[in-house]
Amino acid sequence: MPLGTADRAYNLWCEQEEINMTDTMKRIVLAERPKGSPTDANFRLEESAVPTPGEGEVVVAVKYMSLDPYMRGRMDDGPSYAAPVPVGGTMEAGAVGEVIASNDPKFKPGDHAFGMFGWATHGVAAAKGLRKVNPDDAPIQTSLGVLGMPGFTAWAGMTAYSKMKAGETLVVGAATGPVGSMVGQLAKQAGLRVIGVAGGAEKCRMAVETFGFDACIDHRGKDAKAMREALAAECPDGIDIYFENVGGPTLGGVIPLLNLHARVIICGMIAWYSGESDETGSMPLQKLWRYALVKRITIQGLLQTDHVSRFGDFLREVGPKVASGEIKYAEDVAEGLENAPQAFMGLLKGKNLGKLVVKVG
Amino acid sequence: MPLGTADRAYNLWCEQEEINMTDTMKRIVLAERPKGSPTDANFRLEESAVPTPGEGEVVVAVKYMSLDPYMRGRMDDGPSYAAPVPVGGTMEAGAVGEVIASNDPKFKPGDHAFGMFGWATHGVAAAKGLRKVNPDDAPIQTSLGVLGMPGFTAWAGMTAYSKMKAGETLVVGAATGPVGSMVGQLAKQAGLRVIGVAGGAEKCRMAVETFGFDACIDHRGKDAKAMREALAAECPDGIDIYFENVGGPTLGGVIPLLNLHARVIICGMIAWYSGESDETGSMPLQKLWRYALVKRITIQGLLQTDHVSRFGDFLREVGPKVASGEIKYAEDVAEGLENAPQAFMGLLKGKNLGKLVVKVG
Repeated sequence: MPLGTADRAYNLWCEQEEINMTDTMKRIVLAERPKGSPTDANFRLEESAVPTPGEGEVVVAVKYMSLDPYMRGRMDDGPSYAAPVPVGGTMEAGAVGEVIASNDPKFKPGDHAFGMFGWATHGVAAAKGLRKVNPDDAPIQTSLGVLGMPGFTAWAGMTAYSKMKAGETLVVGAATGPVGSMVGQLAKQAGLRVIGVAGGAEKCRMAVETFGFDACIDHRGKDAKAMREALAAECPDGIDIYFENVGGPTLGGVIPLLNLHARVIICGMIAWYSGESDETGSMPLQKLWRYALVKRITIQGLLQTDHVSRFGDFLREVGPKVASGEIKYAEDVAEGLENAPQAFMGLLKGKNLGKLVVKVG
Repeated sequence: MPLGTADRAYNLWCEQEEINMTDTMKRIVLAERPKGSPTDANFRLEESAVPTPGEGEVVVAVKYMSLDPYMRGRMDDGPSYAAPVPVGGTMEAGAVGEVIASNDPKFKPGDHAFGMFGWATHGVAAAKGLRKVNPDDAPIQTSLGVLGMPGFTAWAGMTAYSKMKAGETLVVGAATGPVGSMVGQLAKQAGLRVIGVAGGAEKCRMAVETFGFDACIDHRGKDAKAMREALAAECPDGIDIYFENVGGPTLGGVIPLLNLHARVIICGMIAWYSGESDETGSMPLQKLWRYALVKRITIQGLLQTDHVSRFGDFLREVGPKVASGEIKYAEDVAEGLENAPQAFMGLLKGKNLGKLVVKVG
């Protein structure tokens, strides 16, 4: 391609709205690391100028940002699969918004893009790290949930590790969340018996009525023994697959019910993210080891980043099912960036109903 | 085939030595269930008449019987992957011997057969459940070790679950035992760095000099922290595969060194078979769960019975390598059935060097 053509293309895509350099953006930073459950004091709202895009970069005005349990891990300064947010740094989050300035031919103003813009009203990022979102396919905030990282996590884990077969029984915690609800729906479509676990009658009703689970157990007020009894009643043939989002008494109830050759996929453990312990958390390793050997269980840690090469497959398979309503999703929308900390604290306590997003702009 | 031909064949194979019905056999029964480590009082030697074969059965005079750690599990009356030995019942064991009477065309007197004849000088069993052993291929007692259940366990676990790749690092405990030595040799042949763990300088020397391990760590006197330090020194690139035979401080040392996407294959946990606990055994489940998620570890229980359909493949692949000396094995022979209990107690304490068998007849 002659240089002139590239230049013209560049100029064409470079059309952009005028950014007034005195425009300000808001962001929420990690004020201090939490001890146990996060509190307001751990967060601080800051203002700064809206950035301008460097070479190959775009600036996005965020419309929706995602709140997810994994963010609790980023607040701690310990070994994990990702670096912690530094104190004073912007809290990490995936977000979707409208491109307001672009220095890359991949995006033009008015396009929608998903990126890791953090807890902020605006973000700047290299265009090549952003995913274009088409508002005509589905509401843009689905790129944060059912068609984003959580939905993909569920799909990637189930397709890579579950070895699910019709007639088997699957249990999943946080059943009405964006991961759990996808896990359960994929399993139902494959002909499994699906039992959810969730906090409260309203979520349990949603798991069955909206997402089509066979049953859903309210974990509130139940210790591991009570969970085991409740699960045993709903899983007369035992448990073949446990998709682990929660840890805690749910896990404690599941372990003794695992069948020969059961699969446990560890995606998260929200009950333990703030350093809580309980009877199950302190179960001796020796006991688990014996279960794993006797029942020849497979236990598999899952992180969606290991599977990103299949994200396109996911969108091609699941996108149309979301559009057609074959796969359902539920959203819980918090209003305004300044309310993100409270919404996040509520998420860790299970107060949201469906995928929690913050409407930012 | 006309009946006459089958009848003739039957008569031909039915030739047998005369069994004198007053001939007696010896067997060792479970006198009482052990509390913790087994003692002499848990075993009792009994005599009875040598059995005669029923329809389709053969009688074998045992030459060698196997002693393996799994037998400790059979002495307890708890849930496991196999039923316990009843009190008063013959202790379970694989054994190989000479057919002395046959009511089945598959075997004739003088043939050698492997079967689950137990701790006994003679056994009777249905011919269809027995495996013919050819003394010209390899010494018959290899059917109890390198070419029997332990060797097959190692091969089945490694081929099914290890996903081993050249350049990776594997750690295996009970390194000079029939499972560990096969695991290590298979991994060496595939180009891995192989670090053994064993009890005592003599075993460690054998792991390196006989079996070709890159190094072997003496676990004696080491707690989990000391094991971790010793393992870290020999595994500069971390641990990709841990083949678990032992539990205890070895496991405690391994866990923090597991790499991203490491595989842990749980085959046994000899350090914990008699109800012992230790720092690693009481490690909180919560901690393991976090490692499994952060490092996306695969933990897989292994039992060879799940893989029996591949036993022929194993013999075809490994048999010639044993015959050629490409795969080495080591044997520790105890003399006489009456010494089996002492030899077994020694096995649980790691006193044997190589595969422990009892020369019975």
